Formats: sequence, structure tokens, C-alpha cells
Amino acid sequence: MPPTITAFENSPDRGRGLARDMPVRWALEEVGQPYDVRLVSFSAMKQPAHLALHPFGQIPTYEDGDLALFESGAIVLHVAERHDGLLPVEANARSRAIAWMFAALSTLEPPIVELAMAMLFERDKPWYEERLPMLQDRVRVRLGELSAHLGKADWLDGAFSAGDLLTVAVLRRLNTSGLLDEYPDVAAYVARGEARLAFRRAFEAQLAVFTAASTG
Amino acid sequence: MPPTITAFENSPDRGRGLARDMPVRWALEEVGQPYDVRLVSFSAMKQPAHLALHPFGQIPTYEDGDLALFESGAIVLHVAERHDGLLPVEANARSRAIAWMFAALSTLEPPIVELAMAMLFERDKPWYEERLPMLQDRVRVRLGELSAHLGKADWLDGAFSAGDLLTVAVLRRLNTSGLLDEYPDVAAYVARGEARLAFRRAFEAQLAVFTAASTG
Repeated sequence: MPPTITAFENSPDRGRGLARDMPVRWALEEVGQPYDVRLVSFSAMKQPAHLALHPFGQIPTYEDGDLALFESGAIVLHVAERHDGLLPVEANARSRAIAWMFAALSTLEPPIVELAMAMLFERDKPWYEERLPMLQDRVRVRLGELSAHLGKADWLDGAFSAGDLLTVAVLRRLNTSGLLDEYPDVAAYVARGEARLAFRRAFEAQLAVFTAASTG
Repeated sequence: MPPTITAFENSPDRGRGLARDMPVRWALEEVGQPYDVRLVSFSAMKQPAHLALHPFGQIPTYEDGDLALFESGAIVLHVAERHDGLLPVEANARSRAIAWMFAALSTLEPPIVELAMAMLFERDKPWYEERLPMLQDRVRVRLGELSAHLGKADWLDGAFSAGDLLTVAVLRRLNTSGLLDEYPDVAAYVARGEARLAFRRAFEAQLAVFTAASTG
């Protein structure tokens, strides 16, 4: 039996691959692990059956035999630890790749999500225009630091790793913001991630769910 | 040689143990690993020597022989993987404890930091009072879900783990907000974490740095 993940029955991102099943699908594709998907509705996510799998009532979850996991970062790490290809073998390099996984979700993502939330929920508020540059500048600080680290390197620390996977997944939230254009090395890095065959397979798989839901 | 971590020379939290060296100190105390501390100033954090250790110019870093790490969550996981006491031995329970580590930093912390940032930087803005309930409600959603999961249990999933350590460390940011009082099970959980001997040792150590800086 392959593992089963959950994903939105009808993703609010309209198939742009920004929901959190995307990095899990991508990781599973990178290591060649087939998986099943169970789609959940917004109302089902807050019911006891799903909350038993995910205490915060979100997607994705990951079930494999006796194991039930939540949190996309933790699921990607779990997959990376059990297959070759997403973490270096050498112990120090492996710890550094995991540091980038945490950096993606704890340092890079929060200001990006804060900006996205303001654009989604506060666009009609009288303070929106005045707050926007502050939120954009918080993202720019991180992009500038990331750009300085990356330079012309292909990936964050040697070969492609789960750290790159989560970092690219997080940065893709900025694809329509215009901010990535200000940091060409970062934009090229994101494009490099999106060009990977495993990324494209994962992207097509999540897009197919959205297309089926919206035409079905 | 014990590992060396970095911490603020003069912590902006005035010794309340909210800087990110605190969870790393706590983890090292839990496993009984002595450590050295190198204090860094705000200006030194943005200089090349520190940026070589931490691409985002923050604290803490962790140096142990050839290894240099950044990101508090990654450092805590690194310590937990190399010592007994912070991760279950059984594989599935170990993966679930790591899921709680990611949940603490990726799901619980962002709305808490967003609220704290608004209180710090936007208190004098005309929109502050109107936005505050929205920010508080985002935190309440997570506290309610956490409370429903915890119930009367001592810890999140069996014995105390690195998942509890990071969750308590994140929730302590709410200690002066009044919000924890609305969720007595969560408040009791935080108090249980703060009562651990390893927490108290770590707290005293970071407080001593602040006290020395402010009286020295």
C-alpha cells in the first residue's frame, strides 16, 4: 500500500500549486514514491475524523501503515529520511540541509504569508496602501539576504536537497507579486526548482484535481 | 570542546527568555550537554563573519567542530537526534514529535509573531485598534485547536519531547498578552514546561547575560 496524503477538494489557489500538499507531492515525486490522495472539503477538515489526523484541521496529512503525520515540513523530512535523494549522506551536510528546511518555513515564509494575507483580506481597508510597503520591505530583507547567500550557485548548499524544495515552494508564493523580479538570482533559483521533472509531475497532479473539481 | 552557540549581547526582550537562543539552551540543558556562548551585537550580526554562520544575520548559531548550523528549530532537532531524552525511540512516535516541532514554528508561531510585531511597531498607527481583534482572533483559533488536542494531557503526544519544548517556547510569547488565560489547559501546559529544571537553568543563563549587560 502506498502512503496516502490529503489535499483540498477544491483548492483556494485555483491550481497554482501553493497549497501545502504541493511540497509533499514534490518530495514524493523526487524520490519516486507513489502515493494516493484523499480529497477533503473545508467543512470535513474541521470534523473529528480529520482533526484526529491533523490537530489544526489543515492539509496535508500523511498516512503510511500505522503512522499518521501532519505538517508539510515534517512530512517532507520524514520522506527525505527514508529515501535517497533529498538529504546529503554526510552528517554535517545533512544537518545543514535540515537547517534550510526550518529556515524556509520559520524565517522566509512568515513575512511572505503576512503579505499574502494582507493582499487577500485587507485590500479594501483604509490602511492597506500605507501598510503595504512595510510588508513588502520585510519580504525584501529576506530576499536580499537569500540572494547574497545564493549568488550564482544553483542550490543553497551543494546538491539539490529538501531545503531547496521547501525554499522554492515558499518563494513561489511571490510569483505574482513582482518582488522576485528585484532579485534575479532568487528568481532564477525558483525557476530552476520549477523546471525539475519531479516538480512538474507534482504540479500537474495537483492542477488535475483543481481542473476536475471546477469542470466536474 | 563543548559546542558554542551565539546569543544577543543585549537582548531586546530584556531577559524574558523570548530570544531564540532560549530553546537551544533549554534543549542542551535537557540532554545535559554543556555549551559555550558567544555574544554578538546587532551590528556584528550583519557583518560577513556572522553571515557566514547565519545567512539571515540572526541568532542563534551552533558550532560544534566542523559543523556550523543556524535556525533554532534545526539546532534543537540536531541536539535531539544526538542525545537521549528529547525524541521518542519508537520510529512513528519520533516522526510525530518532529511534526510538533514544525507545527510549533510553522503553524503556531506566525500569528503570534504577527500580533507581537503589530504591538511593537504599529501601536501608534490609526488602524492599530481596529486590526488588533483580527490578529488576536487568528491566535485564538490556534490556541483553541491546541487546547482541544491537549485536553488534560501533560504533553502533546506521550512523554515530553522536543515538540513540547518548541511549542512551549513559542507560546511563552503570549505570557503578557492575556490570551493564554482564555485557554486554561494551554496556560497550564506552558507553566508545566517552565517548571522543568532544564528550562529554569536555561532561563537563568540567558537572564544572567541580560543582567550583566544592563549593569556592566
